[in-house]
Amino acid sequence: MNERVVNERVIEAPKARDPVLVCGLPGSGYVGKLAADHLVSSFKMKEVAEYTSSSFPPQVSVKEDGTVDPPRGEMYYAAAKGGKGIFVFTADAQPTTSEGEYELSDAVVKFAKKCGVKRVYTLAAYITGSFSNSPKVYGAATSKELTESLSDRGVTMMKDGGISGMNGILIGMAALRGLDGACLLGETSGYVVDAGASKAVLELLSKVVGVPMDTSKLKEKAEETQKVISQLQAMADQSRETTPQPGREQRPGYIG
Amino acid sequence: MNERVVNERVIEAPKARDPVLVCGLPGSGYVGKLAADHLVSSFKMKEVAEYTSSSFPPQVSVKEDGTVDPPRGEMYYAAAKGGKGIFVFTADAQPTTSEGEYELSDAVVKFAKKCGVKRVYTLAAYITGSFSNSPKVYGAATSKELTESLSDRGVTMMKDGGISGMNGILIGMAALRGLDGACLLGETSGYVVDAGASKAVLELLSKVVGVPMDTSKLKEKAEETQKVISQLQAMADQSRETTPQPGREQRPGYIG
Amino acid sequence: MNERVVNERVIEAPKARDPVLVCGLPGSGYVGKLAADHLVSSFKMKEVAEYTSSSFPPQVSVKEDGTVDPPRGEMYYAAAKGGKGIFVFTADAQPTTSEGEYELSDAVVKFAKKCGVKRVYTLAAYITGSFSNSPKVYGAATSKELTESLSDRGVTMMKDGGISGMNGILIGMAALRGLDGACLLGETSGYVVDAGASKAVLELLSKVVGVPMDTSKLKEKAEETQKVISQLQAMADQSRETTPQPGREQRPGYIG
Amino acid sequence: MNERVVNERVIEAPKARDPVLVCGLPGSGYVGKLAADHLVSSFKMKEVAEYTSSSFPPQVSVKEDGTVDPPRGEMYYAAAKGGKGIFVFTADAQPTTSEGEYELSDAVVKFAKKCGVKRVYTLAAYITGSFSNSPKVYGAATSKELTESLSDRGVTMMKDGGISGMNGILIGMAALRGLDGACLLGETSGYVVDAGASKAVLELLSKVVGVPMDTSKLKEKAEETQKVISQLQAMADQSRETTPQPGREQRPGYIG
Repeated sequence: MNERVVNERVIEAPKARDPVLVCGLPGSGYVGKLAADHLVSSFKMKEVAEYTSSSFPPQVSVKEDGTVDPPRGEMYYAAAKGGKGIFVFTADAQPTTSEGEYELSDAVVKFAKKCGVKRVYTLAAYITGSFSNSPKVYGAATSKELTESLSDRGVTMMKDGGISGMNGILIGMAALRGLDGACLLGETSGYVVDAGASKAVLELLSKVVGVPMDTSKLKEKAEETQKVISQLQAMADQSRETTPQPGREQRPGYIG
Repeated sequence: MNERVVNERVIEAPKARDPVLVCGLPGSGYVGKLAADHLVSSFKMKEVAEYTSSSFPPQVSVKEDGTVDPPRGEMYYAAAKGGKGIFVFTADAQPTTSEGEYELSDAVVKFAKKCGVKRVYTLAAYITGSFSNSPKVYGAATSKELTESLSDRGVTMMKDGGISGMNGILIGMAALRGLDGACLLGETSGYVVDAGASKAVLELLSKVVGVPMDTSKLKEKAEETQKVISQLQAMADQSRETTPQPGREQRPGYIG
Repeated sequence: MNERVVNERVIEAPKARDPVLVCGLPGSGYVGKLAADHLVSSFKMKEVAEYTSSSFPPQVSVKEDGTVDPPRGEMYYAAAKGGKGIFVFTADAQPTTSEGEYELSDAVVKFAKKCGVKRVYTLAAYITGSFSNSPKVYGAATSKELTESLSDRGVTMMKDGGISGMNGILIGMAALRGLDGACLLGETSGYVVDAGASKAVLELLSKVVGVPMDTSKLKEKAEETQKVISQLQAMADQSRETTPQPGREQRPGYIG
Repeated sequence: MNERVVNERVIEAPKARDPVLVCGLPGSGYVGKLAADHLVSSFKMKEVAEYTSSSFPPQVSVKEDGTVDPPRGEMYYAAAKGGKGIFVFTADAQPTTSEGEYELSDAVVKFAKKCGVKRVYTLAAYITGSFSNSPKVYGAATSKELTESLSDRGVTMMKDGGISGMNGILIGMAALRGLDGACLLGETSGYVVDAGASKAVLELLSKVVGVPMDTSKLKEKAEETQKVISQLQAMADQSRETTPQPGREQRPGYIG
């Protein structure tokens, strides 16, 4: 981790057929993160690269069995039925600095490019503030050709606004490195972990990529995720109250 | 983008005759940005270098056709009638950190110097808070010789205060690298996109550089720009409300 | 200190038998720092490496004799009776940035690994807000094997939450580099320098590591430490009020 | 300025006899800056090295003749009567980040060490909040030997507290690189530019270094400085109100 904000450890660079990269990170409604985790487990994907970064939040989280995990980014791979290669990038957290977001995006896109990826998809949330039974999927892309292809498959194309954080920078970086990129945003209230929005996004991704994706177990996953999030939020609330240093005020908290 | 805040991609380093560099960036009243964009289109300039930076705002903006653009800095070039070379540097945004401002300025000045540029002009706004029908142009420069030359052509020389951000650092860097630099600041209210201030600045620049510049289409350009800005502002308002992470509070917004 | 946030100066890399690394840093109740200082003095340890960092607080503290010390990290070493090697890492302050915390942790873990260390312990505080006569010791670890070993020796294993700052990152880094790591957290009110919590933590560490550790002089040490802390807090209160720069408001303080 | 926060340009590395380094930077009461500027002009010193840094404030200041200056650090040199070498380091501003303060201090100390300097003095303010006709000089140093030498010459040694910013880090760095360092702090109210405190500090420095220093013209200098400061403060006030970017609120100010 010396002299660099992001560190990559490549486990294996798979030779893949016509591969795509799908990215899903923690964010509003956990729409992208849930979808990415679902792909990893339903395709029984294998980890092929690991990313650590000094711009991840400076903490480890404790699991129920007393073991701890430092925050990491993970790249997974599997070949779908028919042989099409699918890479999935996910992480325990988003980087906390702009510089970290750019560097992590760049490292991820470079690795994907080296493995032959030509299209990068980021999965995100489109927050409306109200609940919907049949969430729409919004989208934006780096090329006119790709926007048309998304539109043909039922994606509502965005016409203005912007996409911030890793979901935006990953496809921006893809474009700067000569790849295509698209962001699919599932309509969500923004108030809860939203497995329904993740399902809608994955169903559209399935059509766009041309690979069947079973989303039946997403609901279960969502419930587990809700537990973890509650725990992370409690931890974050506590960490604000702890680790005093000389000269900082010292308040009672939970864990130091 | 590894180990550096700024990344330069040179498309072509033109052999130019007695060239100058003119810089116009987003800022108060869009005075500099409007003027730079106008020069690029009226001289039918060609892009010769591109700058990406991890200190640009971490987002992509969505255009009306659903395509997205990452923030970039762009260097353009054309030879004016008579052969004098004109470089224009502009960007979608200013860097968000001091370090980013210094590094981008340094990269831009170095490229210009390599292409034979001896004078660097930055175009900026001089905010007064009130509207003016015949906006004045204020100025400051890195050498006594250049301040006199500006003064002779009708620029009101500043006597105190300072010039912050890229407009100041670019000419400071020019001086540190042995070039001359001047900042021309168009009087503006600061409340609206101000094509009038841009026009005033370009008319003076035209005299100072000795190259005719047609400013008749600036007004149209200003109206288009106003649209884009409204859109960017909406985006920024939304981005403040989105991309929650574990432990951060989650509020309804628009895009995640 | 160029181009790096952390600088390491190795004095000696001891050839140690089956060594462990114990880390104790300033934090809540000074639980970890007191324990680390106690180990250094009771085992008459020798300094083997020194760490400086541009992410340490930018100040020097003045001692009673008028001499000053810049903030440093220090690695100590001694062989315990029977030959087992013990490294202790401590510092005058924790880094002030996330990047600094990651880099310092990484440098410390790398040095320890080079010297043959396989287990890294961090000593911390578990803040409860109320006083306890027989403070419990909580724990978390990077492997199931180690959590069981801690649990068998009387450590109450954590089941959720997180460990932030150096105490968490050091064991996270240990795991990423193939070592085992555990954090032992002494129950403390969080209101005062707590030699009792340090004692409880050291007694458990003694069992876990299998090395007798005399804790009888900890109380004295705690009283001295309380003095230094009062002084550091006074200094920090003052430093907030001083070193005005042009354009910042200038308020009367104590030291500039 | 690539890949580094601080950039050094050596003009000349003088062969000096038993030289010392004296550092005076902008800060409370301008005590150190006034004293440094006075030494540079009264000894007719020559600039021997220049420092630029991306951690200096991102702006240029405009002088009365309309010319601008980027912020810089400057190292000066002269041999005093009798041949003793005196280096003076000063700057237009202090770095704005902790990392910048450490790197600039390190670069300055390294240069000094290369030129044979064995002792580094920083001149600072000791703020009391009340006015004094015969300001005391306080001090702290990196070695017992030096504290005694200061004490013998009338310096009131500090017994606690700390010295923050460049004044502290410069002597801390000196110690880390094997040199001696002392900070002399002139008693001042903290409310105004204080030539009296500068004079007191220089008179003591003169005794400590064993070189006569004429302080008669300090008062004049102080009046000029007050003007520049008022101007810088006005500039800083304005810069807070200007350079809006897309999505940031736009308020009327003065200069963009």
